Amino acid sequence: MANGEGPGQTPSATKRRNLLAGRLGALSDGVFAIAVTLLILDIAVPGHAKSAHGLLNSVTRLWPSYLAYVVSFSTIGAVWLGHSAITEYLERIDGGFIRLNLLVLLLVSFLPLPTRLFASYIGNNGPERVAATIYGACLFLTLALLLILWRYSVRERLVRPDAGDEEIQLLTRRLTPGLFAYVALIVVGLWIPVVAVGGYLAIALYYIFPFKHPYIIALPRRRQRRPRA
Amino acid sequence: MANGEGPGQTPSATKRRNLLAGRLGALSDGVFAIAVTLLILDIAVPGHAKSAHGLLNSVTRLWPSYLAYVVSFSTIGAVWLGHSAITEYLERIDGGFIRLNLLVLLLVSFLPLPTRLFASYIGNNGPERVAATIYGACLFLTLALLLILWRYSVRERLVRPDAGDEEIQLLTRRLTPGLFAYVALIVVGLWIPVVAVGGYLAIALYYIFPFKHPYIIALPRRRQRRPRA
Amino acid sequence: MANGEGPGQTPSATKRRNLLAGRLGALSDGVFAIAVTLLILDIAVPGHAKSAHGLLNSVTRLWPSYLAYVVSFSTIGAVWLGHSAITEYLERIDGGFIRLNLLVLLLVSFLPLPTRLFASYIGNNGPERVAATIYGACLFLTLALLLILWRYSVRERLVRPDAGDEEIQLLTRRLTPGLFAYVALIVVGLWIPVVAVGGYLAIALYYIFPFKHPYIIALPRRRQRRPRA
Amino acid sequence: MANGEGPGQTPSATKRRNLLAGRLGALSDGVFAIAVTLLILDIAVPGHAKSAHGLLNSVTRLWPSYLAYVVSFSTIGAVWLGHSAITEYLERIDGGFIRLNLLVLLLVSFLPLPTRLFASYIGNNGPERVAATIYGACLFLTLALLLILWRYSVRERLVRPDAGDEEIQLLTRRLTPGLFAYVALIVVGLWIPVVAVGGYLAIALYYIFPFKHPYIIALPRRRQRRPRA
Repeated sequence: MANGEGPGQTPSATKRRNLLAGRLGALSDGVFAIAVTLLILDIAVPGHAKSAHGLLNSVTRLWPSYLAYVVSFSTIGAVWLGHSAITEYLERIDGGFIRLNLLVLLLVSFLPLPTRLFASYIGNNGPERVAATIYGACLFLTLALLLILWRYSVRERLVRPDAGDEEIQLLTRRLTPGLFAYVALIVVGLWIPVVAVGGYLAIALYYIFPFKHPYIIALPRRRQRRPRA
Repeated sequence: MANGEGPGQTPSATKRRNLLAGRLGALSDGVFAIAVTLLILDIAVPGHAKSAHGLLNSVTRLWPSYLAYVVSFSTIGAVWLGHSAITEYLERIDGGFIRLNLLVLLLVSFLPLPTRLFASYIGNNGPERVAATIYGACLFLTLALLLILWRYSVRERLVRPDAGDEEIQLLTRRLTPGLFAYVALIVVGLWIPVVAVGGYLAIALYYIFPFKHPYIIALPRRRQRRPRA
Repeated sequence: MANGEGPGQTPSATKRRNLLAGRLGALSDGVFAIAVTLLILDIAVPGHAKSAHGLLNSVTRLWPSYLAYVVSFSTIGAVWLGHSAITEYLERIDGGFIRLNLLVLLLVSFLPLPTRLFASYIGNNGPERVAATIYGACLFLTLALLLILWRYSVRERLVRPDAGDEEIQLLTRRLTPGLFAYVALIVVGLWIPVVAVGGYLAIALYYIFPFKHPYIIALPRRRQRRPRA
Repeated sequence: MANGEGPGQTPSATKRRNLLAGRLGALSDGVFAIAVTLLILDIAVPGHAKSAHGLLNSVTRLWPSYLAYVVSFSTIGAVWLGHSAITEYLERIDGGFIRLNLLVLLLVSFLPLPTRLFASYIGNNGPERVAATIYGACLFLTLALLLILWRYSVRERLVRPDAGDEEIQLLTRRLTPGLFAYVALIVVGLWIPVVAVGGYLAIALYYIFPFKHPYIIALPRRRQRRPRA
């Protein structure tokens, strides 16, 4: 706390800053939660099935929608995880951070549209290439902006002083390779769209799963501490 | 607090952990709130009623939608209650918890789709069995994942040390029987779908109502403490 | 704080209780915010206007939708205000409170449907009476449940001990008369639906506007305290 | 803290006030987040494209929707930024603030409708002028109410005593000119609607970008403080 205040800062400024950080988080989490939940609205219930078999068929034939749902959910989940990791490291935020953050949210809340587009055109030979490319480009842009947000935070010294340089570089290194993978997959998607989308899912899972979440490094497993009978 | 920090943990790590826990809660509550509220979008206003009687009839004929609304609302409410009970017990969270939690949210935000499916096909002899089965399977999966989240938290010692073993086992015992009931009801639903859905409602109410909410046990009724004239 | 803890309560129990109260608030505010925002989805953009005049006409002809939007927004706003007033007074919450609260949320998130129904059928002589009656009944039920929630809190001694009896009775007296007004208006609505809906708006504004928000009573205007040059 | 409490205020009153302020922020951020995210629902996926080229064409032809999306997102983002700046300065809130705030939220959650209207009619010579005028009027009203909220807070002394008069006047000066610009652009929009909408975007960006966010003034850049090797 004490080290969060430079000369000339009143306690009121500190309090106001915390308040803003809280509201920034609240707005961001709101957008993430809604973007993720709106995805389901885009899957239409199959109409006019006459028999049990018919409905089962229609429901199964919706697999592209389920795939798109899972891909977009996972990607937004991964971006949320990265966003949380970034804000955890921040000591303060500035005007540039707020604006970049708004841009990240604009992209996140835009994602349901390309998701819907892809789900509508998969299996439709010509158009599905366009849909998969647009989809990949949007996912790429979202992640790229997250990386820019992080690099900006590091450059402008918004990060807590007690965060080690290796930790900071680790997060940078974790966020970067996905971008190259997106570019490669977008190219692949011009020929084999479904493979590209499978790859988008793999990127999201790579971010979610083997992600050494920063603070976990600093947190020793304490299995031994409290033996239960 | 002091006992929440192992050796090698800076206060900054503690602060960051709390921040993440806060954002995890915010994202989760957002998804729960939205999933619950989106359910209403799936009920269409009956069009083209010419007379008061006609509209009354159309509105009444929507009863499957109301039933599905109440069942899904109650189930999501029960999952939220269980989720709150779990997070209340946690001393810390780890990467695995975050990922499992994302999976719970994926299922919760998926629920409006099977809800809509069931509401559309009830009364439609063949297809309604498929719809009720899919609906039950999704409810089952959501609850199963909640139980896995809890068991994971206990196994990985994420739970506060001051939580008694009986309390922990009580929550486990409370969450488990519903799963068996779902399996039984899914089978019933292959023959009598409406009964199955009534059963799903009963399970949700079982979770919501006689639920001895953990902290209530520790909280003596203090009716006597402050007599009011 | 000290007086918030009875014998046999560990600090952990207190912490957990606060956490739950926080999540209850988060879920509730989420549902209020979403219910209020979803209302706009129900107003369809008029299609196929050929001229500026034609569009102006179509947009004006949507007035029942705007009326319904304002009525429902105000009512949900009033319920939120009442809900905030209630939770402000609470020292603790119990299982019954959580369940009643879920029921309030179920009704709040249901409101967009009768709103849509009313907006669709206004001006349509026969059916509009049915629509206005259903609408009024739903508004009545929501408010009635809010009052039950408050009475439950008082009866179960969930209210902070330092809240004066007059304050408590004031809130009760403020919440009650609207219920009788709803009943009267529902009857009126069987003959003149638009008048009834105007009355629903008046009730909501009555709750929002002359509402002596509890803590304001305890908060002396301090205009004199800090003269600005 | 101490100076936030006048005579006759118990700590409980303070606590309750903070709680209400927290819920007001939660409701507001929820509405902002949802309004911003719902905008995407209004962009329909182009149907029935037969070829890659056809889909590319349809997607490009949706540019008015993208423009409207970006304009509304930016405006809501700017209002959120202004709203955060206002609440940061507040020491306390009163009943009038809560009601004015509800009115701001009503307008924010209404914005998706004029956005949709504009996106539907752009390029449609006659009606687009009506649509652009309505759109501009709604944006104007939203911002005007934000300014009223701020002026009310200053007049009723809700602002923290430690906020300097220049800071307060700075925020007022920042919020005001956009209103005149809206009026001018609404007039322009009667002849050249697209130019007007471009101007609405410019206003939003003016609020977002060169905005000297209040607390940033009080926060000296501390680049020098902690040299990194």
